[in-house]
Amino acid sequence: MSRLLDQLRAAVGDEGLATDPAVLRDHAHDRMPLAPYGQPLAVVLPADTGQVQQCVRACAAAGVPIVPRGAGSGLAGAANAVDGCVVLLTTRMDRILELDVANRLAVVEPGVVNLALREAAAAHDLFYPPDPSSLDWCTLGGNLATDAGGLCCGKYGTTSDAVLGLEVVLADGSLLRTGRRTAKGVAGYDLTRLFVGSEGTLGIITRATLALRPLPAVPATVTAVFGSIEQAGDGVQRVVRAGVVPSLMEIMDATSLRASAAYLGVDLGGDDGQAMLLGQSDAGGAAAEREIATMAAAFRAAGAVLIRTSRDPAEGGVLLQARRVSLTALEARGACLTEDVAVPRTRIVELITGCEKIGVDAGLTVAVVGHAGDGNMHPTVLYDRDCPQQYARAREAFDNILALALSLGGTVTGEHGIGKLKQPWLAREAGPVSMRVHRLVKQALDPAGLLNPGCLFGPAEAERETP
Amino acid sequence: MSRLLDQLRAAVGDEGLATDPAVLRDHAHDRMPLAPYGQPLAVVLPADTGQVQQCVRACAAAGVPIVPRGAGSGLAGAANAVDGCVVLLTTRMDRILELDVANRLAVVEPGVVNLALREAAAAHDLFYPPDPSSLDWCTLGGNLATDAGGLCCGKYGTTSDAVLGLEVVLADGSLLRTGRRTAKGVAGYDLTRLFVGSEGTLGIITRATLALRPLPAVPATVTAVFGSIEQAGDGVQRVVRAGVVPSLMEIMDATSLRASAAYLGVDLGGDDGQAMLLGQSDAGGAAAEREIATMAAAFRAAGAVLIRTSRDPAEGGVLLQARRVSLTALEARGACLTEDVAVPRTRIVELITGCEKIGVDAGLTVAVVGHAGDGNMHPTVLYDRDCPQQYARAREAFDNILALALSLGGTVTGEHGIGKLKQPWLAREAGPVSMRVHRLVKQALDPAGLLNPGCLFGPAEAERETP
Repeated sequence: MSRLLDQLRAAVGDEGLATDPAVLRDHAHDRMPLAPYGQPLAVVLPADTGQVQQCVRACAAAGVPIVPRGAGSGLAGAANAVDGCVVLLTTRMDRILELDVANRLAVVEPGVVNLALREAAAAHDLFYPPDPSSLDWCTLGGNLATDAGGLCCGKYGTTSDAVLGLEVVLADGSLLRTGRRTAKGVAGYDLTRLFVGSEGTLGIITRATLALRPLPAVPATVTAVFGSIEQAGDGVQRVVRAGVVPSLMEIMDATSLRASAAYLGVDLGGDDGQAMLLGQSDAGGAAAEREIATMAAAFRAAGAVLIRTSRDPAEGGVLLQARRVSLTALEARGACLTEDVAVPRTRIVELITGCEKIGVDAGLTVAVVGHAGDGNMHPTVLYDRDCPQQYARAREAFDNILALALSLGGTVTGEHGIGKLKQPWLAREAGPVSMRVHRLVKQALDPAGLLNPGCLFGPAEAERETP
Repeated sequence: MSRLLDQLRAAVGDEGLATDPAVLRDHAHDRMPLAPYGQPLAVVLPADTGQVQQCVRACAAAGVPIVPRGAGSGLAGAANAVDGCVVLLTTRMDRILELDVANRLAVVEPGVVNLALREAAAAHDLFYPPDPSSLDWCTLGGNLATDAGGLCCGKYGTTSDAVLGLEVVLADGSLLRTGRRTAKGVAGYDLTRLFVGSEGTLGIITRATLALRPLPAVPATVTAVFGSIEQAGDGVQRVVRAGVVPSLMEIMDATSLRASAAYLGVDLGGDDGQAMLLGQSDAGGAAAEREIATMAAAFRAAGAVLIRTSRDPAEGGVLLQARRVSLTALEARGACLTEDVAVPRTRIVELITGCEKIGVDAGLTVAVVGHAGDGNMHPTVLYDRDCPQQYARAREAFDNILALALSLGGTVTGEHGIGKLKQPWLAREAGPVSMRVHRLVKQALDPAGLLNPGCLFGPAEAERETP
């Protein structure tokens, strides 16, 4: 392996290679405590595409696996190291190479932080929609690898909806360019979107051309407290039926509402407050007024006990605080396993009440917040970190929530990804034919299996097929 | 081959199999006269997914290629038969299986006509955006296979932006389900979009889950006549810079404007009319007023000599007539080769003036209309059908337009596809690494090469690599 380390050092320089145990430890896993991880051989930080190619070729020649990663903000272990791998960190490639205002696009390196692009775009009245909650430190490379979403998706879609083209280093070190700079184009297979969301298993994204939108208006806000989760679910459906697409629509169940109220020391409907909906419109002017009024009317018709609206962004921020602090408020009460499932919008209530029941059965608290506009829910299982029995029951509850989401016609991951956490669940959701196609594609592009092995799926033999 | 025909007849019944020469001739090619086509062995019309699987298995066993097709409205020869193939027609599978209003989605068979889905959705105040000009007879299966676009794309994207999931019969007859019914989901590779736009080379789409949107408002319209194409191009850029995303923005050059004016017998700016822009807003109410006013101001600032606006949809339709009749008006003057390139929005003027020059050099007329909102231009080369020399020069002009689009940072197809018409141009645009990846994917999913052979690319040896 010392020969490989020499080659990597030759590629990236002393400053781009780390084998120090503390650095290796820091780059062994992301933020999901449930996913397994191993001990990397080295961490490399290439400075440009050519260096990425050299590193990949060196690893390929040595038969050493590569785990690509960005900032490590992931929640599915997709960036978790495997034993003896080289962790390839793209954070040094952090330049916005181009911001083409007239064609509304940006060309970026993978290490650009999401917020940096948002701010650079906003300076030209442009908008990069994907807004994962880690947007102030996660990188666009990681966003692309996981097809990151956020609060914006009900109206603006996920990362894959914002990508025009990619530059990708393949498993043999060759450089692929996909897509285009035009707003429209259908020449050949959609290889761009094959790589987006592939979690580093097919290639390493070294450059991306991203579509920008006109900066929307400062949002107006409406919040509503309901006496039951069923009423809140009815509120969501009434908004959908009214033909409004909010720029944000979030839902909180009773447990998360209580936790946020206690954490903030505010009254959020008191005992009557069993659920909350928070909506925003960024349509601007009279259009925003109309959307907010339509949402407020929908919430009222669904039985809301307390409705607040504001056109003032600062006041809107205060209204949204209950949602923003929800995970922090829950973490004040115990260790948290945060889930990421999505269901059809009509099944949100069943998902939330089902999670409550799973919590009761496990003798644990399960709180649910989520993106009501697109059905992407984040149930959080609370447990006592010092109690192995509770941890075991929390893991079981975590799995039961995945099974529940599938039974409701949903998916096991709305935006965090499969990573090294949910491989059996991808197989269960997608089925054996799809897994065969996944493996055929992987085998075609990475025959030696060196790119992020064990991510998304393991060897076919290990897979339990389900009816 | 009689054994194969027996098997096909057993699969689809007498009413689903045709070997009559007239029927074979009718299904040997689509609407693009330049693309080569062969003589099919048979046409099969399966009635359901199971029959498609049986047909595919029978053809696979016999080693006979399959060319899938919908209505045959394509303009790149993607559905053109190859000698001895079975043409698999999906038009009998024409049911809208589900219209889920609350989750804003439809589940359709591939033979559903685009307009039928639009109308079914509109009855519930919902909207299926992709609107190719053949929407009243083209099928959704063909739309999916080619990632069809239309006038809506600048605001609403193409077919791939509207697809949630697919059911696909693979080359070995097995049935793959991709995607999901949820608005959001990132489990596994984006196989859905790998099949969308793959022009029948990777599998046969037998079912699709499509996302619908709220029905937008009846559009308001603005048209502007300019004294030069440069002014019109400036008008487009001013609209983009003003942050407006029109629901429609079309451009016409002097030649197409003259042809339409003569055809309709109306005055479209007379001698001063050298270009036209047509814009619409479907934002409704005050928002539409603002967008139309912003566009009108942008056109005025760019030097428009004649601006008309209307909130009345019938009057708007009249204003758009010049664009709608443009191809018909040109066809009244000669045979037409209609091109389909896309360039960055800032290069539209260079593309149009370049096409004019290509026309002058060839001694032929080239007229350009296009979707200014997304840069997708349709230059049309006029020639005399009875003059082989003109036809040869028209073909050469056709190729020169493709080269021009690439030189402007564009693509050789914005929405019609590569088909059996532009294979060398896909290779030229995408480059050798991309073509290798295309072939790896094709080889993985269709190792015997029986699905629409010769579409998108031929054998690797035949490919001229370009710098």
